[in-house]
Amino acid sequence: MPKTLHLTAFMRPVSLHTGAWRYPGAIADANFSFRHLKAFAQKLEQAKFDAFFMADHLAVLNMPVEALKRSHTVTSFEPFTLLSALAAVTDKIGLAATASTTFDEPYHVARRFASLDHISGGRAAWNIVTTSNPDAARNFGLADHVEHGERYKRAREFFDVVTGLWDSFADDAFIRDQETGIFFDPEKLHVLDHKGLDFDVKGPLNIARPVQGWPVIVQAGQSEPGKQLAAETAEVVFAAPRELATAKALYADVKGRMQAIGRDPGHLKILPAAMIVVGDTVEDAKAKRATLDSLVHYDSAIASLSIALGHDASGFDPDAPLPDIPDTNASKSGRAEVLRLAHQENLTVRQLAQRYGGYAGLAFVGTAKTIADEMERWLQEKGADGFTCVFPFLPQGLDDVAEKLVPELQRRGLFRTEYEGSTLREHLGLPRPKNRFFS
Amino acid sequence: MPKTLHLTAFMRPVSLHTGAWRYPGAIADANFSFRHLKAFAQKLEQAKFDAFFMADHLAVLNMPVEALKRSHTVTSFEPFTLLSALAAVTDKIGLAATASTTFDEPYHVARRFASLDHISGGRAAWNIVTTSNPDAARNFGLADHVEHGERYKRAREFFDVVTGLWDSFADDAFIRDQETGIFFDPEKLHVLDHKGLDFDVKGPLNIARPVQGWPVIVQAGQSEPGKQLAAETAEVVFAAPRELATAKALYADVKGRMQAIGRDPGHLKILPAAMIVVGDTVEDAKAKRATLDSLVHYDSAIASLSIALGHDASGFDPDAPLPDIPDTNASKSGRAEVLRLAHQENLTVRQLAQRYGGYAGLAFVGTAKTIADEMERWLQEKGADGFTCVFPFLPQGLDDVAEKLVPELQRRGLFRTEYEGSTLREHLGLPRPKNRFFS
Repeated sequence: MPKTLHLTAFMRPVSLHTGAWRYPGAIADANFSFRHLKAFAQKLEQAKFDAFFMADHLAVLNMPVEALKRSHTVTSFEPFTLLSALAAVTDKIGLAATASTTFDEPYHVARRFASLDHISGGRAAWNIVTTSNPDAARNFGLADHVEHGERYKRAREFFDVVTGLWDSFADDAFIRDQETGIFFDPEKLHVLDHKGLDFDVKGPLNIARPVQGWPVIVQAGQSEPGKQLAAETAEVVFAAPRELATAKALYADVKGRMQAIGRDPGHLKILPAAMIVVGDTVEDAKAKRATLDSLVHYDSAIASLSIALGHDASGFDPDAPLPDIPDTNASKSGRAEVLRLAHQENLTVRQLAQRYGGYAGLAFVGTAKTIADEMERWLQEKGADGFTCVFPFLPQGLDDVAEKLVPELQRRGLFRTEYEGSTLREHLGLPRPKNRFFS
Repeated sequence: MPKTLHLTAFMRPVSLHTGAWRYPGAIADANFSFRHLKAFAQKLEQAKFDAFFMADHLAVLNMPVEALKRSHTVTSFEPFTLLSALAAVTDKIGLAATASTTFDEPYHVARRFASLDHISGGRAAWNIVTTSNPDAARNFGLADHVEHGERYKRAREFFDVVTGLWDSFADDAFIRDQETGIFFDPEKLHVLDHKGLDFDVKGPLNIARPVQGWPVIVQAGQSEPGKQLAAETAEVVFAAPRELATAKALYADVKGRMQAIGRDPGHLKILPAAMIVVGDTVEDAKAKRATLDSLVHYDSAIASLSIALGHDASGFDPDAPLPDIPDTNASKSGRAEVLRLAHQENLTVRQLAQRYGGYAGLAFVGTAKTIADEMERWLQEKGADGFTCVFPFLPQGLDDVAEKLVPELQRRGLFRTEYEGSTLREHLGLPRPKNRFFS
């Protein structure tokens, strides 16, 4: 059996491309319609995706009003409410929710994930974020944001408390003997009594141990402390390198850190986020992407390009190539990336701006065959264990992945044709954690 | 058209009676099985219930291990995850979740209820609690519990922030014009910028205004500050008087407070919690209740009776009538209630103990006809606008209410035979709140 890919769907927002909702035939309210999201989840499950993934923000994102009023993500569902509703209308697909360790409490987080895991029959995953958005802080009574190192220290302790609470009951604690009247064995209940630097949490959790033992742990893991936290705790990483070379370096780095602390590198799956645009020909796919990029408003697009360049681009001729600009210290790597892209795809200033204002991350743009080729190469060269699929527009962009790319991957033996098990851990080939208090 | 009743179902726990899970034919894990809870919710919807109600606790309840190990509620679902899952498999029934103003943040609470309201098409309700359980405090890093007056002050401000966040967007803010690329009108977005004694919350909420404007506001409202908070803010009160006389006094008190502050008393529905035991005859119903009470373990039962009496009852002869006990200052009203009950139903010490250890609140025990008579009397005498039904055991106790009592109420024109609208506000006959920032 060949090594196979894992595929998750990035679904909050339903598309990271800011022009997605305007694409011809796109559903304008796809991001905020339960009816549509239910159909997407069911389609992804038919395609045997590992999981449906929700990023999260605890604020309306701070952006100029000209950009904000064009954003299709300004109203979005809260992860636990949406994923629980989807749990009731799906059977197999994993359900990954983002929860912040900076603006929430371990008891709440442990409980909601345990509850989602039980309702879904073992399909929950927790994307641990430390929330770097200062606007979120202002929604929780904090004038300034919590400092980066402090956030990661708190995140690590938060993780220990949450997993400790999940282990409150032994897996076989509940007897429910109607005859004797004994509902559970109190010898199989552990009171955590955690006293740490950031948290004092007594416990126990008021919910049985999750079906998966612990829901699957997910992280972005790109900064130094982020990579270390991932190596210590994560089972899925969806970091977003833009090229195979960067991806391979990240892959080796995180898996190396795991080996250094004695964790099996197979117990963490690296699934870079990638936008996927499938066409009948490569040119067709490129034309779709060009159309999509063209739907990004120029005013917000040029602001994004200026940030990437570290130079005000608003005076440039939109329909000419990028002019020479004087070297500065600002954002050298960002500028090099813009120049590489301008050269490689021969883009005008307007096209470059719309790329940066739309979605400038890793993208696979081609036919089902060429995209499968690329994915196979990333897998074989240890750049990825699979991908977190970003859809360019809905429903067609998602349908194309489900109905064209997935069958091509299946033909090559690179992707499952049926779910092997019923829990997300089983889909991902991850072990079920032992209970630290009970053998 | 006669004045009609509203009926909600108290579903966390699925039964407040501690012996419920042991009743012959009862489902032992009814309280923690999504499959069963889904069937219950669908049955209640078929019976046209107004809402499915979840109480909540942020801790395993502190009780002696002998009682705890017999508790069928020690593992329970978290409200938002369960209600969202139920939203996806029901169409009309309201979904009421308890959320604490002491151990949560207004931004989180506003967002989850808004999300549940959108997912369910306008069926969410918020039961505001201030959480008096000191064990909950210890799960959130607090050694001592927050003082009663302080909790209510905080609750009132919490309510103002949450409702203000719900009003972040005008109802017609979202244009989604694919042609011009304008997703929403920024003139119809309000930044709350709340700065108060307990909370600083900037806003706006990152979710459209709820379908119902605001989810329905629910409260228990029995203490003095509780009744005042209810009069100021609540739309449903489920206070638990044990007799019609007490209920009428509470009804007049809360509705009077509303008039004093200029609120329409019709805009709050008082729905006392009542356990309902339906039999083919009154004797049959009483026998069911006696069987149910007999399933309460004597050790925990006698502890409950001792508390109610303010006197150690563990030395009494279990099978004899309650002996005379010397007067003390402790718990005079509780003792009077025990004596009244002992006399009225001619109960032994064991039976009294099992009543107190099982469920000692308001109960309607009889045939569909006698219970309908009682409910009609409570409605006509202004003791209640309906009831929060507590089921004695599941599924039969719930089925009996849905299939025997409800049809009797419908025959009398006291309960709907079809939902009149699609939102919980419409079921309850409550107005949709205006947006305070937009006309």
